Amino acid sequence: MQSVIADLEAPISRDLGRVLCIITGASKGFGRCLARQVAELLKPRSVLLLVARSGDKLRELQADLAASDADKEGIVVRCVIADLGQKEAVEEVVRAAKESCPNDIERLILINNAASLGDVSRFALGFTDSTEIDSYLSLNVSSALCLTAGIMSAFPQRLGLRRCVVNISSLCAVQPFPSWVLYCTGKAARDMMFRVLAVEEPELRVLNYAPGPLDTEMQEEARANTGDPVVRTSFCNMQRQGQLLTCEESGAKLMKLLLDDDFLSGAHLDFYDL
Amino acid sequence: MQSVIADLEAPISRDLGRVLCIITGASKGFGRCLARQVAELLKPRSVLLLVARSGDKLRELQADLAASDADKEGIVVRCVIADLGQKEAVEEVVRAAKESCPNDIERLILINNAASLGDVSRFALGFTDSTEIDSYLSLNVSSALCLTAGIMSAFPQRLGLRRCVVNISSLCAVQPFPSWVLYCTGKAARDMMFRVLAVEEPELRVLNYAPGPLDTEMQEEARANTGDPVVRTSFCNMQRQGQLLTCEESGAKLMKLLLDDDFLSGAHLDFYDL
Repeated sequence: MQSVIADLEAPISRDLGRVLCIITGASKGFGRCLARQVAELLKPRSVLLLVARSGDKLRELQADLAASDADKEGIVVRCVIADLGQKEAVEEVVRAAKESCPNDIERLILINNAASLGDVSRFALGFTDSTEIDSYLSLNVSSALCLTAGIMSAFPQRLGLRRCVVNISSLCAVQPFPSWVLYCTGKAARDMMFRVLAVEEPELRVLNYAPGPLDTEMQEEARANTGDPVVRTSFCNMQRQGQLLTCEESGAKLMKLLLDDDFLSGAHLDFYDL
Repeated sequence: MQSVIADLEAPISRDLGRVLCIITGASKGFGRCLARQVAELLKPRSVLLLVARSGDKLRELQADLAASDADKEGIVVRCVIADLGQKEAVEEVVRAAKESCPNDIERLILINNAASLGDVSRFALGFTDSTEIDSYLSLNVSSALCLTAGIMSAFPQRLGLRRCVVNISSLCAVQPFPSWVLYCTGKAARDMMFRVLAVEEPELRVLNYAPGPLDTEMQEEARANTGDPVVRTSFCNMQRQGQLLTCEESGAKLMKLLLDDDFLSGAHLDFYDL
């Protein structure tokens, strides 16, 4: 980690340029941390568009960012309070992005971070209600595709614009965990969706980033509710033994990936492999 | 292929026993072929439950099977006309399975074959309507989980009952193809869903079978509509050069897998790897 942090704190050249960056699920956990970390890497007249369901928490974050260096640098932070499980939410975010973005941005970064854990207390054979699964997939899969399509269509490829889309993925996208059927299925679906996007749009930079086990509310939920005793115990042990990652250290690796911008588009990159 | 067909035609012992077998998407293409092939491997008093949207085609298949040896062997063929994209459909299939199944079956086989191609004429960035994606995932992902959960709960683990669930998968579950975002995403989601099921239920036999490129209506649709010119041309060439597989030859390999019953549960097995 030392070297990553050193990199981030290193010379003036380490910024992302004049950027429109959209982060979903920005009000807490990893999304909130990413908002702060991205803000530090933006040039003046960049726009940071934060999306989340909770208006209170979003405004709190906005105030925090305003009190930080970001504001002094003339970075616009805009909040969209929207539930991405709802059809209208995506349109609202796209509209807000168009409205608030200057024409001369150099880089567009969309971080699809919003996600829900789903009910991890039950095993796959307990999922007999299609409405529950449909609604999980709508929030965790469909909305990420729609938002990506909407944003990229609103800001099409042009000379001098680098476009990047990040999917916050998980080890669960590639490895099955008992009693995590919705989460694993959703993450596997998202990874493939973004792999297809990567082969379709060679100019677009696509990254599936698995941040590792983060010390967030979602992990608390996992420790409390996971139905499979082995998985639950392993989460509890990780926490007890201090093996959970801070959002800051995982976020720093993602920032480095974005700054270096030399990852293979469409790749699934895990915190532990970097 | 010779050896597989020889195997299927081989000694008396090559049958699946007294079975309840449920096949979705049974009215045409691969599902229809599987219905015929399974019927030949069933012992008397087995039940074959065929599910599809098209009543006419299902009844035609039922009549065909009645005229074949299957009927003489006292195999019950029952049809459920239902659209698995609809919530009620799953309940209807589960109810029909319970009603028509004798208590003393030795084996339960559920073949999740129903699937749609989705719109392959557009690229991922064209998918801005969440309703379209939601409805695709509901038919191709949610309904397969719900049906599997419903059927396995209706016929729980007991001594003397071997339970198996087959997911008709695809190369698209593991490899992205341009302009096939819905299909690839759905197939990747299904594979992971069934991998989770496999780690959760060690007694249940779970198979993700990728049947290879089959000479079916879906392939016609793919040749006619695929937006990506390279993929479309490659499908057209495969057809012209006689490289598409018949449903019969691919189905024969699946029958062999079911008969041998020694695959690793949860594995993704491709026609070409067998």
